[in-house]
Amino acid sequence: MARHTARDLRSENRFEVLHALFELGPSTRQELARHTGLSQATVATLVTEFLSGGVLHIAAVERNTGGRPQERLTIAPDRGRIVGVDVAETYVDAVVHDLALDVLSHAEVALDEKENDPGYVVDGIVRAVDRALGADESERERVIGVGVSMPGHVHPDAGVSVFAPNWDWHDVHIEELLEQRLAIPVYVDNPLKAVILSEMWFGVGNVVDSMAVVNLGTGVGAGIALDGSLIRGITNNAGEWGHTLLELDGRACRCGRRGCVEAYVGAPGLRTTLAEIDPGHPTLRQPRQRDFVEAVAEGLAAGDPALSALVLRTGRYLAAGLGDLVNLLDVPHITLTGWASEALADRLVPAVRDELPHHVLPGSLPGLTVEPSQVPGNAVALGMAAFTLQRFLTRLGLASPARTRPRPDREPAGFGRRAVTVPSPGPDAV
Amino acid sequence: MARHTARDLRSENRFEVLHALFELGPSTRQELARHTGLSQATVATLVTEFLSGGVLHIAAVERNTGGRPQERLTIAPDRGRIVGVDVAETYVDAVVHDLALDVLSHAEVALDEKENDPGYVVDGIVRAVDRALGADESERERVIGVGVSMPGHVHPDAGVSVFAPNWDWHDVHIEELLEQRLAIPVYVDNPLKAVILSEMWFGVGNVVDSMAVVNLGTGVGAGIALDGSLIRGITNNAGEWGHTLLELDGRACRCGRRGCVEAYVGAPGLRTTLAEIDPGHPTLRQPRQRDFVEAVAEGLAAGDPALSALVLRTGRYLAAGLGDLVNLLDVPHITLTGWASEALADRLVPAVRDELPHHVLPGSLPGLTVEPSQVPGNAVALGMAAFTLQRFLTRLGLASPARTRPRPDREPAGFGRRAVTVPSPGPDAV
Repeated sequence: MARHTARDLRSENRFEVLHALFELGPSTRQELARHTGLSQATVATLVTEFLSGGVLHIAAVERNTGGRPQERLTIAPDRGRIVGVDVAETYVDAVVHDLALDVLSHAEVALDEKENDPGYVVDGIVRAVDRALGADESERERVIGVGVSMPGHVHPDAGVSVFAPNWDWHDVHIEELLEQRLAIPVYVDNPLKAVILSEMWFGVGNVVDSMAVVNLGTGVGAGIALDGSLIRGITNNAGEWGHTLLELDGRACRCGRRGCVEAYVGAPGLRTTLAEIDPGHPTLRQPRQRDFVEAVAEGLAAGDPALSALVLRTGRYLAAGLGDLVNLLDVPHITLTGWASEALADRLVPAVRDELPHHVLPGSLPGLTVEPSQVPGNAVALGMAAFTLQRFLTRLGLASPARTRPRPDREPAGFGRRAVTVPSPGPDAV
Repeated sequence: MARHTARDLRSENRFEVLHALFELGPSTRQELARHTGLSQATVATLVTEFLSGGVLHIAAVERNTGGRPQERLTIAPDRGRIVGVDVAETYVDAVVHDLALDVLSHAEVALDEKENDPGYVVDGIVRAVDRALGADESERERVIGVGVSMPGHVHPDAGVSVFAPNWDWHDVHIEELLEQRLAIPVYVDNPLKAVILSEMWFGVGNVVDSMAVVNLGTGVGAGIALDGSLIRGITNNAGEWGHTLLELDGRACRCGRRGCVEAYVGAPGLRTTLAEIDPGHPTLRQPRQRDFVEAVAEGLAAGDPALSALVLRTGRYLAAGLGDLVNLLDVPHITLTGWASEALADRLVPAVRDELPHHVLPGSLPGLTVEPSQVPGNAVALGMAAFTLQRFLTRLGLASPARTRPRPDREPAGFGRRAVTVPSPGPDAV
């Protein structure tokens, strides 16, 4: 059996300590050890490493009666900046965070759904990052990394978009293309992994350790955490719930299969359903997906009966797909996220809840919660920022094996020792 | 967030050491620590505990140049007996194992599919266990536990069959009923958990750490392991792949929903499909499910065209359902087990493989293996025996917190300090 390597373990331990710092707020080493289940020695080593990299600072020193003084540690927000980028079929949203993952600024750039050239998409990402960082050059110099969520099948270690059906991309070396333009270390991953990390750290993960986050947009999918572990799958392709069956030989899906959940509850699927209900409905004249979904939300508020029927049918489809998730994985909590969910949740969630008893096995129904995600802001961008921080800490650890504490101002701004592939910016760099 | 308790961790550590002993064979403490990733101190403590309980013995002492003598440890097969019991809709198979989980004997008792009284089913289990143990009273006295797999939703900690749709059982206290009759500690669980444990320990778990085992019989389901962890779900109900959708509003399923995978690929589903292909087919006259499936296998061998069509359609249904499993969880390996799989795998597996490319996302297809399980014997009974051994070791640890080593012949035969609910056998006990 393939076992975790010692290096995996060290990386996981860093992640656990980081997560505990976000969950507990300013904490002592003892509290971190108790919360993570790691040994005091392991926590002490990692804290020393984080302090030496300037990532943590000592918020307070407490003197208990008789005992040694206890240092209370917290993340140093101004040690650097992290940009989390949500790249969807129709837009790029770049969000600048400090090291405590608080949002400082963001910028959105629209993408033309019809364009699929990697250069066009890279250009959109670069423009969004540049706008979000603004004109202050010193802010840009403080960026330790850019985490970019790309739709489709992504291999984070290789930095490659393995397959993006919306653009018909195969093996696009997106990390390298972006690092050439940005001259900042880039980490790429898939939005489903980003939204589940956000939910685990900043959403219902504070009360449950098994959950799914269903992302509704042009494409749909589910981020999954079981027993506190983010489920990636063997090729980082887990969570493609959108490409599980709702109906064998049903509607054509853009993945090539027929009858997938996405063909019913993705934004284009909503359009298909509305056309079945009322082929002449004026909302169908909205050519762009986000405009279409916004128009549906407005029409619902105005009491349009065809749109009410659309919500009821979509609620049934969604409940059927969520029923499959629950019956297979027995998760107690499902949250909905993504732009389509944000637009429609008020009406869609009650419709889903009404239908769930027809699709969930009786043993799992009483403890099941389905609700809109409470993660603040753009959960994809936030999750990508958290992954990027984790990678930075891992590289920091690799770069400073000794436990000596160098002066923080001598630490590199980027991913430790790692060289950016092409050090000079490309010809189009801003 | 709900964290693992220290007690969970100790129990998991015992399981890891036990697994390593099965995987490595006779091992030194150092080898066990290296293989499990546990500290030398933790392994040494657990080994002391296992030795004191007589579960391990020292197979050899090796003297390396200069170093301390190294003890090579192995499971003591004759420390006790464990009965693993596979209770299905149509039969009970009780298998007697030694402590090394080698099979010593077994006995099968048929169950009438129409009978649903708990007393009838308990009686069948007791008869199978008694027959498997035979007339030698000293064998019975050595039994440390009976692990019983029950179909449906089972809560192992409470020993309760929460819901068994085949018998319309709700909250049947099966563990207590059986302990009253057998006067031996009983552990109950669900067959999906048993088959995946068998696969992890004695099947493809030696080469992959994420996999699914699809169990085909009257009911169907999937045991799931991800990154080396058995997936139970929040109520022990994970793996109900048989109750995920193949077709919204499709065939009625006995769970009450329509269109579930089970309604197409469970044994009654095969009968429905054959009736669609050829309503007058003579095989349909077989009233009992196992006879029907055996007759299908014989007819296939004789070249019956309607039965060939049945296999092709069933292969397509099965590939569609497996495609959902792979697309959602990105597992690289699926094995098929269960009596219906054993009867039909020769013809069914090639039919499934032909259809998989139409249902699996392209990124996951190249690394995907689908094959009959190579776990020897009854994988449900073997997995239940392994769970029972694990529970025995946990109780042993709780019963002997001190590190002193009592004489093995003074150790209780059963689950450490735990009292059997009703110490005297019930009136019907054999």
